[in-house]
Amino acid sequence: MEMSLASIQRAVGGEIEGDADFVVCGVNSLDLAGVSEISYAESERYLEKADRSAAGVLVVTPDFPSLQGKSLLRCGVPRATFVRVMYLFQESHAPPQGLRSGAVVASGAWLGQNVSVGENAVVADEARVGDGTEIAPGAKIGKGVRIGRNCLIGPNVVLYDGISLGDRVRIHGGAVVGGEGFGNVRTEQGWIRIPQLGTVVIEDDVDIGCNTCIDRAAFGETRVRRGTKIDNLVQIAHNGDVGEDCLIVSQTGLAGSVTLGKNVTLSGQVAVIEHIKIAEGAIIAGQTGVTKDVGPGEIVWGTPNRAFKRVTRELAALARLPGALKDLKELNKRLRKLEDSSAEGQES
Amino acid sequence: MEMSLASIQRAVGGEIEGDADFVVCGVNSLDLAGVSEISYAESERYLEKADRSAAGVLVVTPDFPSLQGKSLLRCGVPRATFVRVMYLFQESHAPPQGLRSGAVVASGAWLGQNVSVGENAVVADEARVGDGTEIAPGAKIGKGVRIGRNCLIGPNVVLYDGISLGDRVRIHGGAVVGGEGFGNVRTEQGWIRIPQLGTVVIEDDVDIGCNTCIDRAAFGETRVRRGTKIDNLVQIAHNGDVGEDCLIVSQTGLAGSVTLGKNVTLSGQVAVIEHIKIAEGAIIAGQTGVTKDVGPGEIVWGTPNRAFKRVTRELAALARLPGALKDLKELNKRLRKLEDSSAEGQES
Amino acid sequence: MEMSLASIQRAVGGEIEGDADFVVCGVNSLDLAGVSEISYAESERYLEKADRSAAGVLVVTPDFPSLQGKSLLRCGVPRATFVRVMYLFQESHAPPQGLRSGAVVASGAWLGQNVSVGENAVVADEARVGDGTEIAPGAKIGKGVRIGRNCLIGPNVVLYDGISLGDRVRIHGGAVVGGEGFGNVRTEQGWIRIPQLGTVVIEDDVDIGCNTCIDRAAFGETRVRRGTKIDNLVQIAHNGDVGEDCLIVSQTGLAGSVTLGKNVTLSGQVAVIEHIKIAEGAIIAGQTGVTKDVGPGEIVWGTPNRAFKRVTRELAALARLPGALKDLKELNKRLRKLEDSSAEGQES
Repeated sequence: MEMSLASIQRAVGGEIEGDADFVVCGVNSLDLAGVSEISYAESERYLEKADRSAAGVLVVTPDFPSLQGKSLLRCGVPRATFVRVMYLFQESHAPPQGLRSGAVVASGAWLGQNVSVGENAVVADEARVGDGTEIAPGAKIGKGVRIGRNCLIGPNVVLYDGISLGDRVRIHGGAVVGGEGFGNVRTEQGWIRIPQLGTVVIEDDVDIGCNTCIDRAAFGETRVRRGTKIDNLVQIAHNGDVGEDCLIVSQTGLAGSVTLGKNVTLSGQVAVIEHIKIAEGAIIAGQTGVTKDVGPGEIVWGTPNRAFKRVTRELAALARLPGALKDLKELNKRLRKLEDSSAEGQES
Repeated sequence: MEMSLASIQRAVGGEIEGDADFVVCGVNSLDLAGVSEISYAESERYLEKADRSAAGVLVVTPDFPSLQGKSLLRCGVPRATFVRVMYLFQESHAPPQGLRSGAVVASGAWLGQNVSVGENAVVADEARVGDGTEIAPGAKIGKGVRIGRNCLIGPNVVLYDGISLGDRVRIHGGAVVGGEGFGNVRTEQGWIRIPQLGTVVIEDDVDIGCNTCIDRAAFGETRVRRGTKIDNLVQIAHNGDVGEDCLIVSQTGLAGSVTLGKNVTLSGQVAVIEHIKIAEGAIIAGQTGVTKDVGPGEIVWGTPNRAFKRVTRELAALARLPGALKDLKELNKRLRKLEDSSAEGQES
Repeated sequence: MEMSLASIQRAVGGEIEGDADFVVCGVNSLDLAGVSEISYAESERYLEKADRSAAGVLVVTPDFPSLQGKSLLRCGVPRATFVRVMYLFQESHAPPQGLRSGAVVASGAWLGQNVSVGENAVVADEARVGDGTEIAPGAKIGKGVRIGRNCLIGPNVVLYDGISLGDRVRIHGGAVVGGEGFGNVRTEQGWIRIPQLGTVVIEDDVDIGCNTCIDRAAFGETRVRRGTKIDNLVQIAHNGDVGEDCLIVSQTGLAGSVTLGKNVTLSGQVAVIEHIKIAEGAIIAGQTGVTKDVGPGEIVWGTPNRAFKRVTRELAALARLPGALKDLKELNKRLRKLEDSSAEGQES
């Protein structure tokens, strides 16, 4: 695939410095790019790397220095513009349309136009699959599932009965959406499972990572709102309500009925206990155990969650604690000595 | 589906206050229930919510206040009774019996009566599947696996060769039971894998969550005992012995040869190191790293595990530590001053 | 299967003490072994257990005491030798060769000799599968994937398009290799996914556990080097570079662009943040959150990672902190008293 710098600029914007007719053959990182490839430098911090890069074209900020032998595409946020260039160069992945070998689509299922159903995938009765959606090999689409347009359901994904996906939802290999919530009630005969009668709703433009699990609600719904991106091996329990444009990094787990506002970031291996609310824009550092609600824009860390700065202060103090305990002992000795001499003074 | 309150009471017990002929059309939570639905209030804490609820019938305790316009079903443990009502209303999910399209059952496998084998599922040679068991689409049942009666093997579940399940075992989507234990021995040529020759035994009434992994034993067996409920994304390594009626919450991991007594609760993201024993009734708080045995009924937290109360005391003390270090410095100054004046006094 | 002790010794080395003609019928652990089985004792610590064991033959160290009624095979590292004996006794698992029922192999895929493709497995176009490799039921092999010789691709495993495996690679049930890296850039329209154009390379003799996820690189490759063993439910993000002969225990997660040297051990539930380097031979204790580079051979623990000994010292100090805070208060009182009396002395 080839595109001139001028035609790239027409597609993604920005201003060209250098050879507008330069023919770009691919996108790459600064260190891996070849002479006919385009790369990017996010800021002047990458100046040296950019200069060493073989890339023929770089996407840079308006005030980035000129570089000998390279054409530049200047714009406000190089990374975002570069991603748009990447999309231009992405191989148009056109899965073979229609049903592939071994695919089983129930007679009562409804498939839109240009839907592809991969090898040995299964679409159960009453399911509805929107136009342009790709169902990869081995995916299992349960009864009555509703899938929007231009979704990607990855290989061996499981969508349990009755859940709903919006448009452009992408669910990666092995993920399971709509599994039973983990609800049990103790009786004299041991634990009895509480039937989980609710569903899961995944809104538009949500990404769900490999082997991630999102459980159906006990009643009502578990909902993941528009634009949220979820990494691999994440757990979202029943009745969760994940806000718009959140980022949930790998191996994080939300217990039941957790509510996240918009733009919340959960770093890796975070745990959130039941019924917690995390407000808009909050950032939860890695491995945090959230046991108390988090306010808007707060940055928290630790188990239980505390203000990030407080935790760093406590860790710094803890590092000094072994020495401080010795000091305390020493102080006690000195004080005793003084007390003794004072007592002697009074006695004498 | 419709049932009169009187017929519900005949099925689950309790005492009716109000209209025994009231026709109930469904079960729901207090906030979602409609006028013809039944809900429950666990205690008077939910009085206000119960009063606001549109539910026509509520399951409540014997001493819960009467509520205008609502019929009540009074009983000792409303939540447990309500779960029984939920089961009455659960759609009798009758999977199509027999082999579905693409299902492959080896000629040497044995299927009981009323067994359903979903689309593209595989049952290998010498496997035995008990009466009434449902094998969902894409599940892979290995050679010689034994499955009891009325089990549910979820979509894309993997049961490796030779493992055994009791009756009413439910394994959810993507779970893998009987994978090789992680055993390696270091040699001059690097790590050599230790063959894992044992098996896995899952007893009656065990639930295993989505994408959870339970490994086979090196020798002998990994065992999960009757009635234990396991959430999603849990890891149970080789030779584990999980007691009866345990609860294991999501993303928890047991290293090799861990033993849990009866009624142990492991909250989310707990890690337990090799050869640990956790005794009956112990409760392990979330994200705990269990490195020492836990006695009966103990409640522990933290890494390494300590008594829950001790950890909260330590955390409270830690919060005061930065201030205490300043106090210590101040004390030192004051003591020095006193020492100096005392020395002066002696010199003078 | 039966083998004389003499023939075992010819295969694995060591020196026989006792009956070289003893017929061994199986391998087992000390506590489970029967009279015609072979077991091992790693050191004299296991003397009592060895003595109680019914095993007819034991693999032991050169200076292990003789045991009445047992033949011994003496060698330097009993555990490693015993593993070699286990391999002798392992049932030669010969999967049926060729394509099984429901397997779909694209016409443009290439299969070597003695390749087995399990029931309902899928091998896409341009994939190449080396001699002797077994593809288990339900595995999905993407377009252009290259698999070496004598590999094992477990049930329901997903290998995304274009990734490469060396020889003798073993990937266990439900694992997903080559999923999209988790890269997103924030724009005014919310998060935009960064296309992940790189690949994954798994070198020879690597093991990958059940439901583990290894993501493809943004550019270039994610690489796992020769001989590394990875447990279940592990996450390795885009552009990771995992050294040779590492051990990565269950539920550990590596963020993007993490580099591990040779022989690194990551215990369970470890988290490593982006761009971290962990040098050769380092050992990371369980649940550690690695936020700073780790030097060769270092042993670290805690979040953030600190020297193991430092953490144990800090924990010991923390245990004494609640008491120390009381002492500090007491000291303050005593000091005040002394100050007061000193002031009085001066005033008088």
